[in-house]
Amino acid sequence: MPFQSTRPRRSIWMYGLEADEPTESQRQEQAAEFSKRIGADVELPPIPVAEELDLRKPRITPPSSIEAFCFTDNYERAVHHKGDRLEEIRGVFRNPPDIVAHPRNEQELEAVLTWCSDNGHAVIPYGGGSSVVDGVTPPEGPDGIVTIDMDQFHRVLEIDETSRAARIEGGVYGPHLEDQLRPRGYTLRHFPQSFTMSTLGGWIATRSGGHYATNHTHIDEFVESVRMLTPRGWYESRRLPGGGAGPDPNRIVVGSEGILGIITEAWMRIQKRPTFRATAGVTFDSYEQAYTATREVAQAKLWPANLRLLDPLLARDSAGLDGKKSLLVVGFESAEVPQTEIMMQAIEIVRNNGGHIPDDEIQISGEGKPTGRGGAVGAWRDAFIPGLGTVSTGVGMVTGTFETSITWDRWPAFDAAMRETAQRALNEICGGGTVNCRFTHVYTDGPAPYYTFAGRYKPGLTQKDWMAFKSAVSDAIIREGGTITHHHAVGRQHRPWYDQERPDLFADALRAAKKSLDPNGVLNPGVLIDP
Amino acid sequence: MPFQSTRPRRSIWMYGLEADEPTESQRQEQAAEFSKRIGADVELPPIPVAEELDLRKPRITPPSSIEAFCFTDNYERAVHHKGDRLEEIRGVFRNPPDIVAHPRNEQELEAVLTWCSDNGHAVIPYGGGSSVVDGVTPPEGPDGIVTIDMDQFHRVLEIDETSRAARIEGGVYGPHLEDQLRPRGYTLRHFPQSFTMSTLGGWIATRSGGHYATNHTHIDEFVESVRMLTPRGWYESRRLPGGGAGPDPNRIVVGSEGILGIITEAWMRIQKRPTFRATAGVTFDSYEQAYTATREVAQAKLWPANLRLLDPLLARDSAGLDGKKSLLVVGFESAEVPQTEIMMQAIEIVRNNGGHIPDDEIQISGEGKPTGRGGAVGAWRDAFIPGLGTVSTGVGMVTGTFETSITWDRWPAFDAAMRETAQRALNEICGGGTVNCRFTHVYTDGPAPYYTFAGRYKPGLTQKDWMAFKSAVSDAIIREGGTITHHHAVGRQHRPWYDQERPDLFADALRAAKKSLDPNGVLNPGVLIDP
Repeated sequence: MPFQSTRPRRSIWMYGLEADEPTESQRQEQAAEFSKRIGADVELPPIPVAEELDLRKPRITPPSSIEAFCFTDNYERAVHHKGDRLEEIRGVFRNPPDIVAHPRNEQELEAVLTWCSDNGHAVIPYGGGSSVVDGVTPPEGPDGIVTIDMDQFHRVLEIDETSRAARIEGGVYGPHLEDQLRPRGYTLRHFPQSFTMSTLGGWIATRSGGHYATNHTHIDEFVESVRMLTPRGWYESRRLPGGGAGPDPNRIVVGSEGILGIITEAWMRIQKRPTFRATAGVTFDSYEQAYTATREVAQAKLWPANLRLLDPLLARDSAGLDGKKSLLVVGFESAEVPQTEIMMQAIEIVRNNGGHIPDDEIQISGEGKPTGRGGAVGAWRDAFIPGLGTVSTGVGMVTGTFETSITWDRWPAFDAAMRETAQRALNEICGGGTVNCRFTHVYTDGPAPYYTFAGRYKPGLTQKDWMAFKSAVSDAIIREGGTITHHHAVGRQHRPWYDQERPDLFADALRAAKKSLDPNGVLNPGVLIDP
Repeated sequence: MPFQSTRPRRSIWMYGLEADEPTESQRQEQAAEFSKRIGADVELPPIPVAEELDLRKPRITPPSSIEAFCFTDNYERAVHHKGDRLEEIRGVFRNPPDIVAHPRNEQELEAVLTWCSDNGHAVIPYGGGSSVVDGVTPPEGPDGIVTIDMDQFHRVLEIDETSRAARIEGGVYGPHLEDQLRPRGYTLRHFPQSFTMSTLGGWIATRSGGHYATNHTHIDEFVESVRMLTPRGWYESRRLPGGGAGPDPNRIVVGSEGILGIITEAWMRIQKRPTFRATAGVTFDSYEQAYTATREVAQAKLWPANLRLLDPLLARDSAGLDGKKSLLVVGFESAEVPQTEIMMQAIEIVRNNGGHIPDDEIQISGEGKPTGRGGAVGAWRDAFIPGLGTVSTGVGMVTGTFETSITWDRWPAFDAAMRETAQRALNEICGGGTVNCRFTHVYTDGPAPYYTFAGRYKPGLTQKDWMAFKSAVSDAIIREGGTITHHHAVGRQHRPWYDQERPDLFADALRAAKKSLDPNGVLNPGVLIDP
């Protein structure tokens, strides 16, 4: 019997829901628009249908004790395939999980994990499946693969209003989580780009980057405690506001990408929903002035919720600027105190660095008033959210992103090296394309730049071509001193560069730690480390 | 030949330098004062002299390759003994290190660590030796013990002004570190209570709690990268402003308390020296109103540098209040922007919660002006710094502290339980005494309370009595949901409660990680975990 989800069905071939899939005429319209933009015709590939797929037969059969929540239908296995998107769009799903489990409670989770560990079946812990780095892609090698989809763990179990914290199940999707906090006036206020298609457990496992551009940027900072099932049993940390008792036991779970256990719950620090806001879109004639201003605001420790710099190309495409000006979006928010004065302190810093914004374009809103979302800032917001996906094959474009962080002293040379490398790779692989950059998060000691590239889809383009591009830019990131990922995680795709970045002895320590929690090595093999 | 230090000699029997040791007449004066306060005579114990001590002969001999920086004289071995203070004051040093090494560079450090690892000699990594939890105390058991004092690693090697970061050696003491940053206008601004007697490497190894009362409270947040020598070689992380590539490799070093390696260098995030300041000492008639106000300021995320609440007893003894009023010290600081408005936002919150402060007592200072340090706040500052030490035996008082963190929902009941437990233990052991509390750090989800107790020294009082007290309050901390340490670290003394607090599977993972980096188990045995 197919799995009966209470959630909308996800697309098997694109990032999003089936309901989000474009119609044939929408695809043709979009293809025409992109053709015009890149000056060459883009071709529409076909679209696969789950029921018609000829998938490899499941190689393992769940015992009767767990079969009630284990599924093997085409749709379930295809939607959890998460492989080569360029193959998937042609209906090729080479290595689907053999079984997709949807445990409904901790006992069922224990039962399926124990069965896998005892029998050496690989386990793919699965949140929303939004990984862009093959973090939930079944690996080649294991004889049996069980994807454990945590979507039945979707409740906010408890809200502690005094401490501003909530106990939340790991499988809850972003919007559903916010729906449960909103009636009490709270929010986690963690909005990664993948927000609609990802879960709390996934955010924690991958050190997701969220709403806040400065100060507490990663989900890491909001984790008060975790509860995680490992093959050796439960790992549960104590609720504490802060601590100094040994290395933080939460910090080995945060970023563990499913190799140590499956996160079932966490106590998370939550926020009062903000009512005071201040927003400004500041333009700069010089990109150098723009990033210098951004650095100075970050170093002044005003901690704006938003401090996102768009380079001239992105400012043009996303916010309608002239292609020469950069745009810095500055935003403050609070549930408690007006944000006018602190915004004006930031504005003074950016103006001292050549930033332009008329006083009457600084948007201030107080209690009960809506936030201004017009103008350049509004256009940028709209452009931000649906930007994800490695290959927008539906419309015949190859698009993608890479992201990193780098200290300020290296920044301008780093940026130049990235653009040059990416442009050259696009020229070689797609015969041209564009590269732009924004800062998603900014620290006192450096920015987290996020590059988006777009090239033309050519028939026959495969994952290999994509990896050639990925390799070129990733090599450059590591060579120039950045990190292979500021928040997209390592998964399987970033491994070669992650292996150069992390201390070798850290890998040894992590391998030893994994061996102690997952003695049979079943959890997400190939992610982060090899056995 | 005795070690020729360039640093002032430390006292072998008290927390501080030899130069800080009280004279006989000072001790008598202080004894008289304390006798009056507690209403009973306190007795002066004798004071030991290094040269006269009859220490166990060194059981091991350094090979010629390392003997140039290995020392065995009485003073070196006594000052690194760090055992039972109540015995030490009587001249009993039961288990001194056999050798004290002062390597002068990384090659010498490698040589001594390799020799120890190859021969199974226990290694005690030693910063300033300010541990109050037996973190650098040689353990019983090993046949040879080498304390590696890192005091020759005392330089600031590089300052990156653009990124506001500095590469600093691990063995530098607080004041000397600040001396090296000051001429360039920078500061690490990390002032643990142990500041004068502790080192950067020690702060990192023990997750020291520093200057900032909110937001970035622990040294953890200021570590950009680390360089650490393990028995298996060097562990060095990449300089990054932020990252999401697997579990953070810095976060297993932070808090590792010398069991994984010896920290030789770190890139640290530094600060511009603040010039704008605002300070206020707010009094409350009700303690409940005081901590509620404190919570609301923390939750408003104004991130004051100072937000320290003194309970009525401490406010009386440290700041001259009436014994009924609580004192909340609120402070903001910045190198870039005036702090008036943000202070007034905090003041509005505390006044709404019953806080009293006349407008003209809110001290605001701008660029170039000194910070006000008068009144209640100044008195409190003076009382804060020299407060450490488990037993002020020099003046015949048993004093000490315990510290923790707790979520706000549990706070009032937790506080009541702590006071009741501590008072009962003092009554039993010392025949009475006092307990007071301050918040050293405050989080959105809870405070870090710091309790100080004082009882009368009785002849014959031993470490066992001290541990009876420690046990009673530690049991209560764990039972009531706190952490055994918010920033004093675990060492050997906190082990029984740490073992209850951390997830068992985390201990397994840490043990496995240690085994991979320190295969022969020589580093700081007994701290954090057993083999």
